[in-house]
Amino acid sequence: MKIKGKNYETVWMENGKVKMIDQTKLPHTFVIAEYGNYRDIFNAIKTMVVRGAPAIGAAGAYGLALAALNFAGNDFSGFVGHIKHAKDFLASSRPTAYDLLHGLGKVEGEIVETGSVQEAREVAVKSAREYATWSAENCKKIGELGNELIKNNDSILTHCNAGALACVDYGTALAPIRAAHYAGKKIFVYADETRPRMQGSLLTAFELSEEGIPYAIIADNAAGYFMKAGKIGLVIVGADRIAANGDFANKIGTYEKAVLAKENNIPFYVAAPSSTFDFKCKTGNDIPIEERSEDEVLTMTGYSGSSFQKVRTSPLGSTARNPAFDVTPARYVSGIITERGILKPSEISSALADN
Amino acid sequence: MKIKGKNYETVWMENGKVKMIDQTKLPHTFVIAEYGNYRDIFNAIKTMVVRGAPAIGAAGAYGLALAALNFAGNDFSGFVGHIKHAKDFLASSRPTAYDLLHGLGKVEGEIVETGSVQEAREVAVKSAREYATWSAENCKKIGELGNELIKNNDSILTHCNAGALACVDYGTALAPIRAAHYAGKKIFVYADETRPRMQGSLLTAFELSEEGIPYAIIADNAAGYFMKAGKIGLVIVGADRIAANGDFANKIGTYEKAVLAKENNIPFYVAAPSSTFDFKCKTGNDIPIEERSEDEVLTMTGYSGSSFQKVRTSPLGSTARNPAFDVTPARYVSGIITERGILKPSEISSALADN
Repeated sequence: MKIKGKNYETVWMENGKVKMIDQTKLPHTFVIAEYGNYRDIFNAIKTMVVRGAPAIGAAGAYGLALAALNFAGNDFSGFVGHIKHAKDFLASSRPTAYDLLHGLGKVEGEIVETGSVQEAREVAVKSAREYATWSAENCKKIGELGNELIKNNDSILTHCNAGALACVDYGTALAPIRAAHYAGKKIFVYADETRPRMQGSLLTAFELSEEGIPYAIIADNAAGYFMKAGKIGLVIVGADRIAANGDFANKIGTYEKAVLAKENNIPFYVAAPSSTFDFKCKTGNDIPIEERSEDEVLTMTGYSGSSFQKVRTSPLGSTARNPAFDVTPARYVSGIITERGILKPSEISSALADN
Repeated sequence: MKIKGKNYETVWMENGKVKMIDQTKLPHTFVIAEYGNYRDIFNAIKTMVVRGAPAIGAAGAYGLALAALNFAGNDFSGFVGHIKHAKDFLASSRPTAYDLLHGLGKVEGEIVETGSVQEAREVAVKSAREYATWSAENCKKIGELGNELIKNNDSILTHCNAGALACVDYGTALAPIRAAHYAGKKIFVYADETRPRMQGSLLTAFELSEEGIPYAIIADNAAGYFMKAGKIGLVIVGADRIAANGDFANKIGTYEKAVLAKENNIPFYVAAPSSTFDFKCKTGNDIPIEERSEDEVLTMTGYSGSSFQKVRTSPLGSTARNPAFDVTPARYVSGIITERGILKPSEISSALADN
């Protein structure tokens, strides 16, 4: 993705360290965080320095590579135990996104097949890098395929940030939008601000600004208004986990927008790579939903001048509920834009069974 | 309403001044604002020191009483011209809520019938007070009637603040909730925080806290999640203007919650006094919708310690759209709780034609 005219990936590895764009500081400050220990990667995922399903999949893969580099000694069975522990620990950082389990599983699988600690260290780094590259390529392909859904002069609603920042590059929901923009189509994006963490207002608006794509931020409450007013031609969102029947988990509020899109006869597309599909989940009921701190709802964090500030927006002593994701049933989904094609929910099991 | 154990109305008149609870300071600071000039009432309504359809109806009525008191001289036809100008000016403070036009119309009607400036001044104050009392009594009655819809152990979703603070007293949507609580029913309220102005989080939570009614604040995005999870038994919202066919304007996001309630087979009630019905609007398409400053979406205002702070939650240079209200079609409405009974949308024209 372009930031201040330079190309970046969200997360990468350099000189034995994992580097990532610190997303808790955007859009006001552009900072690269650097980590040398897999326990720091756990914290970076948990505190949302890195977030978005494909991005935390890659961060997890790189974290496991760090765990391999962090291991002292040459006892391979001890090493395998260490890797398994690190994998379970990294997997516990956030429960909903399937890409995290997918990325960790790929790297662990290649590590345990090596037989020596020395070889495993090299394989781990190579495997994590390959995983990140594969993940970025999938998003690029999603952009190319999804671009076909976007017509000249379309207005597109998106929710949360399913952009390059949520992936290694390109984005999921924003990949077709980028591709359409690069293809010279005139488009306009309505970006739901996405309370409580404001990823739409903070991150999607940032990416669209950097790309020069016209947009307006709207309160999540206003999406229905613009749909009913005929201002939205298409909805594209990302996903954190997709079940075998096409039900999918995504940022809280996605279900609301899907119901409203159906009510207003607006096509509703999910953009997600194969790494987001969890066929062990038969339906959306099997997807674990994270409930985060009520503090995220009772307060708001933003910038005042050059300093980061948290303000309270509720009475002292208030309680809140804060589910971070919801599940949208497959019946609201017009199609799922994957790297292997735009699929109906009923087609995913056969098309992606080998993921 | 009870605040710190003492009874208050939202707006009242005392010694020739209009007093109101300053709602821009709640819940952190409880301040009574005082105004002696109708132009200050215009500003108080516009900047939302007072907000909520019935409350601004009463504030407008009191504002017109101030305009009568502010007039110098005894020329009755000059006085009538001054009152008409003041009425039009006050009416232009906010375009959507019908109660404002209704309250202004009642007081103006009684003023112009007097024939002398001296008498008109007395009548204006008396008329505004009677209007406010009538408005509060209507809300009390809405509470009594609406209470019958609430069962023991019900959980109720509400949007924005349609509480005592939005009225002279009791509330519209919160009136049945108060009445059910006073009747000893065990209830739980899910309060949509209601971006961008956060009236749910700031004001509804404040009122529920003061009354000791259990509640949780939720992001507007989470209402659908809790509906689908079977946690919401009933939705009650207020209204800013109701058209002859039952379509109604209310805080942005109300339409979203109405569609979701229908999708999940949850009863959806509107609570509003007869002063909110505008039979000159045949359908919701005739209701003017206010679009407020984009700054409300691009920033968030709250408290940090003891000081009021605005933080920016979007990139510099971003644009936003900020419709303050949406229109919910009558087909999503289970019933409208008025002071004259709980009516189907098809029944309102005959039941309330004399409003």
